[in-house]
Amino acid sequence: MTVSVLVETGRVETETRPVPTPVPGDVLVEIAAVGVCGSDAHYYRHGRIGDHVVTGPIVLGHEASGRIVAVGDGVSPSRIGERVSIEPQRPDPDSVESRRGDYHLCPHMEFYATPPIDGALAQYATIGAAFAHPVPDSVGDVAAALFEPLSVGIASIRKSGVTVGGSVLIAGAGPIGLVCAEVARAHGATRIVVSDIDAARLETAARFGATAVVGPDEVAGLDPFDAFVDASGAPSAITAGIGVVRPAGRVVLVGMGASALTIPVSTVQNRELVLTGVFRYANTWPTATALVTAGLVDLDAMVTGQFALDEVADALDADRVEGSIKAVVFPQRLSGQQGTGHQDHGHTEEEKAS
Amino acid sequence: MTVSVLVETGRVETETRPVPTPVPGDVLVEIAAVGVCGSDAHYYRHGRIGDHVVTGPIVLGHEASGRIVAVGDGVSPSRIGERVSIEPQRPDPDSVESRRGDYHLCPHMEFYATPPIDGALAQYATIGAAFAHPVPDSVGDVAAALFEPLSVGIASIRKSGVTVGGSVLIAGAGPIGLVCAEVARAHGATRIVVSDIDAARLETAARFGATAVVGPDEVAGLDPFDAFVDASGAPSAITAGIGVVRPAGRVVLVGMGASALTIPVSTVQNRELVLTGVFRYANTWPTATALVTAGLVDLDAMVTGQFALDEVADALDADRVEGSIKAVVFPQRLSGQQGTGHQDHGHTEEEKAS
Amino acid sequence: MTVSVLVETGRVETETRPVPTPVPGDVLVEIAAVGVCGSDAHYYRHGRIGDHVVTGPIVLGHEASGRIVAVGDGVSPSRIGERVSIEPQRPDPDSVESRRGDYHLCPHMEFYATPPIDGALAQYATIGAAFAHPVPDSVGDVAAALFEPLSVGIASIRKSGVTVGGSVLIAGAGPIGLVCAEVARAHGATRIVVSDIDAARLETAARFGATAVVGPDEVAGLDPFDAFVDASGAPSAITAGIGVVRPAGRVVLVGMGASALTIPVSTVQNRELVLTGVFRYANTWPTATALVTAGLVDLDAMVTGQFALDEVADALDADRVEGSIKAVVFPQRLSGQQGTGHQDHGHTEEEKAS
Amino acid sequence: MTVSVLVETGRVETETRPVPTPVPGDVLVEIAAVGVCGSDAHYYRHGRIGDHVVTGPIVLGHEASGRIVAVGDGVSPSRIGERVSIEPQRPDPDSVESRRGDYHLCPHMEFYATPPIDGALAQYATIGAAFAHPVPDSVGDVAAALFEPLSVGIASIRKSGVTVGGSVLIAGAGPIGLVCAEVARAHGATRIVVSDIDAARLETAARFGATAVVGPDEVAGLDPFDAFVDASGAPSAITAGIGVVRPAGRVVLVGMGASALTIPVSTVQNRELVLTGVFRYANTWPTATALVTAGLVDLDAMVTGQFALDEVADALDADRVEGSIKAVVFPQRLSGQQGTGHQDHGHTEEEKAS
Repeated sequence: MTVSVLVETGRVETETRPVPTPVPGDVLVEIAAVGVCGSDAHYYRHGRIGDHVVTGPIVLGHEASGRIVAVGDGVSPSRIGERVSIEPQRPDPDSVESRRGDYHLCPHMEFYATPPIDGALAQYATIGAAFAHPVPDSVGDVAAALFEPLSVGIASIRKSGVTVGGSVLIAGAGPIGLVCAEVARAHGATRIVVSDIDAARLETAARFGATAVVGPDEVAGLDPFDAFVDASGAPSAITAGIGVVRPAGRVVLVGMGASALTIPVSTVQNRELVLTGVFRYANTWPTATALVTAGLVDLDAMVTGQFALDEVADALDADRVEGSIKAVVFPQRLSGQQGTGHQDHGHTEEEKAS
Repeated sequence: MTVSVLVETGRVETETRPVPTPVPGDVLVEIAAVGVCGSDAHYYRHGRIGDHVVTGPIVLGHEASGRIVAVGDGVSPSRIGERVSIEPQRPDPDSVESRRGDYHLCPHMEFYATPPIDGALAQYATIGAAFAHPVPDSVGDVAAALFEPLSVGIASIRKSGVTVGGSVLIAGAGPIGLVCAEVARAHGATRIVVSDIDAARLETAARFGATAVVGPDEVAGLDPFDAFVDASGAPSAITAGIGVVRPAGRVVLVGMGASALTIPVSTVQNRELVLTGVFRYANTWPTATALVTAGLVDLDAMVTGQFALDEVADALDADRVEGSIKAVVFPQRLSGQQGTGHQDHGHTEEEKAS
Repeated sequence: MTVSVLVETGRVETETRPVPTPVPGDVLVEIAAVGVCGSDAHYYRHGRIGDHVVTGPIVLGHEASGRIVAVGDGVSPSRIGERVSIEPQRPDPDSVESRRGDYHLCPHMEFYATPPIDGALAQYATIGAAFAHPVPDSVGDVAAALFEPLSVGIASIRKSGVTVGGSVLIAGAGPIGLVCAEVARAHGATRIVVSDIDAARLETAARFGATAVVGPDEVAGLDPFDAFVDASGAPSAITAGIGVVRPAGRVVLVGMGASALTIPVSTVQNRELVLTGVFRYANTWPTATALVTAGLVDLDAMVTGQFALDEVADALDADRVEGSIKAVVFPQRLSGQQGTGHQDHGHTEEEKAS
Repeated sequence: MTVSVLVETGRVETETRPVPTPVPGDVLVEIAAVGVCGSDAHYYRHGRIGDHVVTGPIVLGHEASGRIVAVGDGVSPSRIGERVSIEPQRPDPDSVESRRGDYHLCPHMEFYATPPIDGALAQYATIGAAFAHPVPDSVGDVAAALFEPLSVGIASIRKSGVTVGGSVLIAGAGPIGLVCAEVARAHGATRIVVSDIDAARLETAARFGATAVVGPDEVAGLDPFDAFVDASGAPSAITAGIGVVRPAGRVVLVGMGASALTIPVSTVQNRELVLTGVFRYANTWPTATALVTAGLVDLDAMVTGQFALDEVADALDADRVEGSIKAVVFPQRLSGQQGTGHQDHGHTEEEKAS
């Protein structure tokens, strides 16, 4: 099979590797679509994220969908042929965290595209059978791949406590900020304000659930919110956001930034705010499936670039293109020539066909 | 002022009484609209609900809206002229329950139209200033009156724990079942099944948020739900509903029925279901206002009968008319002749005008 | 090895069977002590509990401790020799319930001594490595076996919501009622009332954490409690208990009784009580270990009878002996003659030795 | 009556003022004992705490007990003579926060000894009747005054989520750290580690519930805790403490320090820690009463200095005395000469007498 490999910082190449054989409990998935995440681009450009350091060749990509083509021992062969969305986690089911329902915090986690674990930018990949979630016919391959960033949004809004008639401020109108806005709307929030420094991104946010959009300087003057979700990682946005949360409200930090951050702790104390972070997610795929199937969230609308497997370098740099939201790679496609990837807006071919 | 009084079981009459003077902390409201609740009809027909017994003349009606026309000491006169929805509760703010945020469970509660406290079927009524909630211009008087049954739905769905992508079975397609369905939809539930013995009521439910409707015999065969909300009070519906809740799911009993009930307790135990009831509500008016203002809930569509203050007897019996959902009385109107009340369907004049 | 088998209702016999070989992920435990549970006696006498029917020979016993003597593939051999308390559950880690942290509600559960799964009244038994919990030296074999009923108490008091300075009524002074009282005391509850029809059992309760004991007729006159835990299964006790719970308080039904039960539903509704049941437990062994190690709970004091493996019939009938609380079987002991089991009170030999 | 007044930064003087008359709903309390809090000393020395600035003469003291000697309209005269512990809060019962049960976060709060509201260092003071909590005979005046700092401990440990068999790290062995340790022990926590830079204070902590004490440098090497409570306000202690909290654990910041603080945000995110602060407390007095009455918390043992009302300056500076934990002022006592206050250790005269 063909695989896209990050061979060293700043260089991805396609390679031919044997198709993996699923171990007991696993399934083998023919990968249909892979979304590109900011963390993929970060590994590509910097070779590390915090304590996670790339020390050898690695396959990137952890937002993936496809079709089961083989199963390991203990998995029903009836699943062969099933279209699936991959939850890219391999926790130890016996860890204290998994037992409590926080399997995403399992210290023994193996996670796609987190060194040294290979990801999904390949024609085939394996995953635990229960982490290959069936996808209904009405959901296209691209949307199924994007259940992963949607899960980050679901986890974030769950932690925000936002509910019907509630209000939330979201800082950052990138892909995570946008799914947070969509998920907040699905929760019945009626005041969803998105802030960003980029006016074009704010226009996008207005199409993804925001009831209002503001520039960073306007945040301080806003009425209090039930919750603030930071999807920017920007210290100034975090400070401003914390300042406009009501007493006993919540602050959810999902955007990754510096390892240390100065926060207005007296505000946290005086208002007894509850501040937490989102690392990954647990038990979100059924929710994601229900949301997309019911039309409460539109993932296809986020796709602004489509790429073949030998165009991964372009896909990783697509975030530098004006107006880009989300690039998707189709591992079964080979362009024959790297660098011809194209950006487009709106719904994808896959979505139209389904 | 003119007041409609339940003078004895089965007999309501209009009387002339002095307009009340608001005590310190209260406001005087000129009543615009009053919804008729099943409990009003029950007092009218039976003179009691459980331990609450009518022992003297009483004014019914606890779903009310209007306009502030006078204020007691300690209330800003600037509130005069404000359109309000009345939360018909007078808890003791110093009770243990109020201090905890459960003011609706305060043992010293005085509640409209619960003996011996008079209700709102009058041209004027008083209430604590903080329980007269401002209503935006976009919300009509009828909808504002119906924030009260909507609050029962909000309280019920909050306790059900239903959230985005979740599922709920609602037994009973009366007004409370319908608002529960609407509120569940607003919470992002994507599977909302309503059961009822009456096919016409099921048709109505399909317009109020239900994603499917079923007869009582079909319930046992349904896939498990995250929660079951009983708005029927029917023992057979409650038993059937409990039987289709998933492990660790919730059961909310809002429909009032017998004082004792036989439940499938081994199902509750073996699945560790969480069963509770809804008596009243706390902290729901801001949510109701946000939901109606955002168009997530349509209360006007529930109104099937409109009556003048001297037609209260007809309004109380309107639930016996085929297709009736909710009757509304307009206390500032006098027909001059009792008994000419009319039933209609769909949106009200008020709603059309606003 | 020697095994005690329930060959038919009312008849247990010792048999010789091959020592089991641990499958991958399992450990083999040489069983040191097994507590006898009311459910063991119920299977022995009636051949079924609700839908769980004994249809062939079965090994009873699910409260067990011992020492690891062999490990299956994937388990570190360093665990051989470790003293362990057995959590007698084999859930599917991939079920929706396990993923949520409710692994005890997994529909694919295999549980010791629940037909057709064999239990621990044998000289050896296997269990998943993560369900064989290490026991500190300061905890004896008998106490380690009784971590299982203690876990029921922990699960019950967790669900009761009882906390420091709180109050709880516990109906039933059998082993589960007693551990509930002890665990409530460990949670800082300062008013722990135990009710029972048996005066001798009430005396015992006073030694296990109860701050007061009452007969069933006295319950109705008690001041309200934050929570009521039923460990009796008696309908009259449940009705009485529900009647003395404060608004928004909790009711936990742990005692198993009839499949259907008439409850005072209007009380549940009017006070918005939260009623639930306890089936099994999750994530309790670390808590049990900490409680026993810290001396906050005394399990040895519950043991009133000790039996050899060929005295299981006597152990199963020990609950019919006046003053009996908990019988314990030592599978490595053979008396050579059935029927010589003795009852004693107070601490066990094991406990004294440790 | 005689009152101790902070007339300007660094200067307190006794004055004669008229005894206040209780307004409707209030009671008048003859003050028996007043604990001195770090915030009193801070106002005395610096004239401000954050945004709260002393702009005129103010009476300090918010930890108080006494006896009701008069009641306002609407309060039963039967309460005259009752011994009470004062909860020094006057929230608006109609605020959104009060309605939710978070009355301590009410933005319209009037709180004793927070500018410009006078406190309790006087012979008499008024408070809302429901905030004058009855004290059982078994609890002395000093302990009753210290229900206030105990309430801070209760609020902190509630937020920490610590429960039976759990673990908590507490930074800072001052009065708040000590009550946190005692309350954690009452909750059944079995591993309670207290850190401080002062070895003498650590010795004290070992008498107040700590199962281990450590110096600041030892924290980083500790096994993970379920929760970390900071009662030091020291940035380095906060950073170290956050580093040893388990995934999904809690961080509670109760010690007040700088308005902004640099925290290891990537740790908060990667472990999805939940961080919050404690400002004040709600619904803690019944818990405090139960804890002290049951002997689960010993407040008298914290008292290391006793002072007359004209010795308040000494009391405010008592924290500078080696070994000092808590100073208490007795407003009915006048020494006739300022400056003769004495420090002592162990139980107070009041405690011994009761």
